[in-house]
Amino acid sequence: MVFGWIDEQAGARRRAGLVRTLRPRSADSPLLDLASNDYLGLARHPEITEGAARAARAWGGGATGSRLVTGTTELHTELERELAGFCGFEAALVFSSGYAANLAAVTALAPHGSLIVSDAGNHASLIDGCRLARGTTQVVAHADPEAVRKVLGTRPGPAVVVSDTVFSVDGDAAPLAELAAVCRKSDAGLLVDDAHGLGVLGAGGRGAPHAAGLAGAPDVVVTVTLSKSLGSQGGAVLGPARVIDHLVNAARTFIFDTGLAPAAAGAALAALRLLRREPERAERARAVATALHARLTAEGHEAVRPDAAVVSVRAPSPEQAVRWAADCRAAGVAVGCFRPPSVPDGVSRLRLTARADLTDGQTEHAVRVIGETRP
Amino acid sequence: MVFGWIDEQAGARRRAGLVRTLRPRSADSPLLDLASNDYLGLARHPEITEGAARAARAWGGGATGSRLVTGTTELHTELERELAGFCGFEAALVFSSGYAANLAAVTALAPHGSLIVSDAGNHASLIDGCRLARGTTQVVAHADPEAVRKVLGTRPGPAVVVSDTVFSVDGDAAPLAELAAVCRKSDAGLLVDDAHGLGVLGAGGRGAPHAAGLAGAPDVVVTVTLSKSLGSQGGAVLGPARVIDHLVNAARTFIFDTGLAPAAAGAALAALRLLRREPERAERARAVATALHARLTAEGHEAVRPDAAVVSVRAPSPEQAVRWAADCRAAGVAVGCFRPPSVPDGVSRLRLTARADLTDGQTEHAVRVIGETRP
Ligand SMILES: Cc1ncc(COP(=O)(O)O)c(C=O)c1O
Ligand SMILES: Cc1ncc(COP(=O)(O)O)c(C=O)c1O
Repeated sequence: MVFGWIDEQAGARRRAGLVRTLRPRSADSPLLDLASNDYLGLARHPEITEGAARAARAWGGGATGSRLVTGTTELHTELERELAGFCGFEAALVFSSGYAANLAAVTALAPHGSLIVSDAGNHASLIDGCRLARGTTQVVAHADPEAVRKVLGTRPGPAVVVSDTVFSVDGDAAPLAELAAVCRKSDAGLLVDDAHGLGVLGAGGRGAPHAAGLAGAPDVVVTVTLSKSLGSQGGAVLGPARVIDHLVNAARTFIFDTGLAPAAAGAALAALRLLRREPERAERARAVATALHARLTAEGHEAVRPDAAVVSVRAPSPEQAVRWAADCRAAGVAVGCFRPPSVPDGVSRLRLTARADLTDGQTEHAVRVIGETRP
Repeated sequence: MVFGWIDEQAGARRRAGLVRTLRPRSADSPLLDLASNDYLGLARHPEITEGAARAARAWGGGATGSRLVTGTTELHTELERELAGFCGFEAALVFSSGYAANLAAVTALAPHGSLIVSDAGNHASLIDGCRLARGTTQVVAHADPEAVRKVLGTRPGPAVVVSDTVFSVDGDAAPLAELAAVCRKSDAGLLVDDAHGLGVLGAGGRGAPHAAGLAGAPDVVVTVTLSKSLGSQGGAVLGPARVIDHLVNAARTFIFDTGLAPAAAGAALAALRLLRREPERAERARAVATALHARLTAEGHEAVRPDAAVVSVRAPSPEQAVRWAADCRAAGVAVGCFRPPSVPDGVSRLRLTARADLTDGQTEHAVRVIGETRP
């Protein structure tokens, strides 16, 4: 039977307790959200939703074509200029998603014959970028500049080191300054994905590269997403103008993809402007994460010290992680649950996210529910 | 120098006259648009832009997380139900882009050890899907069921045949019924990308698979985009529920990507409902394309007979194609220009798109300008 192997795989997943299902939420869901990546609490902010609505009215429901044909509006250019300026880079290029931005950046910066050095904990989109790229990928130990140095020493020719700035599963930060130093010694480029850093780390949320003194460096390229701290959808690549021009000419997920919808560009632009006006939101997100972690470890949970706004709590097994998350949910608190095959190390965890707009009382309530439902 | 090879590539592109640049458009651009993929003229329709605005207000600027965590709203489910129903399939799954939907469908339907048979004219996103998939890809001659049959005979094990329904460059249609027959003889699955068929082909715009009698078939999977006829952004995979469940569990661009922004889902849903109410828009888009082609060939242009809403006109060289498109633009008519390396056969062309809302007078004006600017 056609697609018969799908049923075999589905059976195996069922037996292993690893079936994933969609749970649609309503517009007025009463759940306390500690699962989204809306770190600054902007996705439902009226300025952001009005930014989306206004852009849709002015520019239409979609961009209507590739950015190279009809899909570039003055709104896209405005967003690119402000995003680059905010993060301290010469130029920016906006994509339909952070995923697409990562595919573009990795493939365009790793030509045939080049070396890609990729952190073992990198996001799926960076990994897919490595798979699509013409260069050769070498995976190195997680957050280990010395391992990177060794691999860079093994080959002549162009090389690019690729890493998340804040890793999505555990929320730990990459050693950016050390990575940059190692890259510079070997004339390698550094490409970092600041999906979980933008809006949270750096002065006023300017991101992890800015905090590490790498903003505007000629050998550093950064990808960001508009879908987390900026409460919208889309992604961007930030870097030297010559690199951005290269992407316009070479990146398949830019050339052959419809431009980002005006509403998403408008929402992201509104979020960026709000963040400029209220820079304390970034600090507040970090403070909530620190407090959440402190309270959880005080209660005896095994949690990773957060470098940004993600707090990861270890669960005894995949089954217990699923049950724990479901029990939290039943008690009114939404938490993320990461388990194989989505975790590189096979360790299941609850993934909690801090938000700038969580009150101390809400954090306290979440900690209580997580404790009471502990397996 | 880091990224030094970028400057070499840029120099080569300049010398070959193949530099691509972005031309931002204003919200009130006076250009007559024959370049976008807004086939039904819905991107700026007030019902569609209000659908986007309303959804942003009700649901927020972004989906806030992966569809498997916080990123599935009841709005996404509603869109999936209506889209599947409209096109005649059991189930649908919505993605952040058509590109992401294609990556998901190809990779999830071509496991290790399987065979992918891919048309030589397929869209970049299908090609990237083949590159990412664990199966082995065999590229076959364009629109050639007999070539597909031969390749399918060479290997046992699961196989999937992958094709655009309407090819994006020339606008010609794939021989869907013949492909389906060949697949069935070999127990192979058929995966088709209806990006340029949805809204234009089939009864009331239900798409090319519906027109070919393949809607709802257990061995057929269809991808669509929300960014062309539906005037929004996003993509979807349509097929048997078991295939859709499989994608939820296995497709990396679904699992590790933020859900489609509510505004984009709302715009697409509004477009779908409008199309149900005004099914004549599909026919009108086809009629405009046919008229455009007839007038162009009457004027001595070499144009491919359109099977949907794309009309491709041959240009003598890449340089002349670029100048021709620029001259049209200067005379107030926006046309697409495809040239190497974006065309598989090295032939440069103007790419014109018909829209349901083009008047006969506008079509006539466009034909006149294209004739007057002919190189
Ligand atoms: C580290 C990282 N990079 C990239 C992405 C992809 O961004 P987007 O969801 O906007 O496509 C994500 C999450 O979705 C992520 O966690
Ligand atoms: C045939 C085809 N498939 C897929 C896509 C990608 O869809 P999207 O632009 O919505 O990502 C396109 C064009 O963009 C296309 O022409």
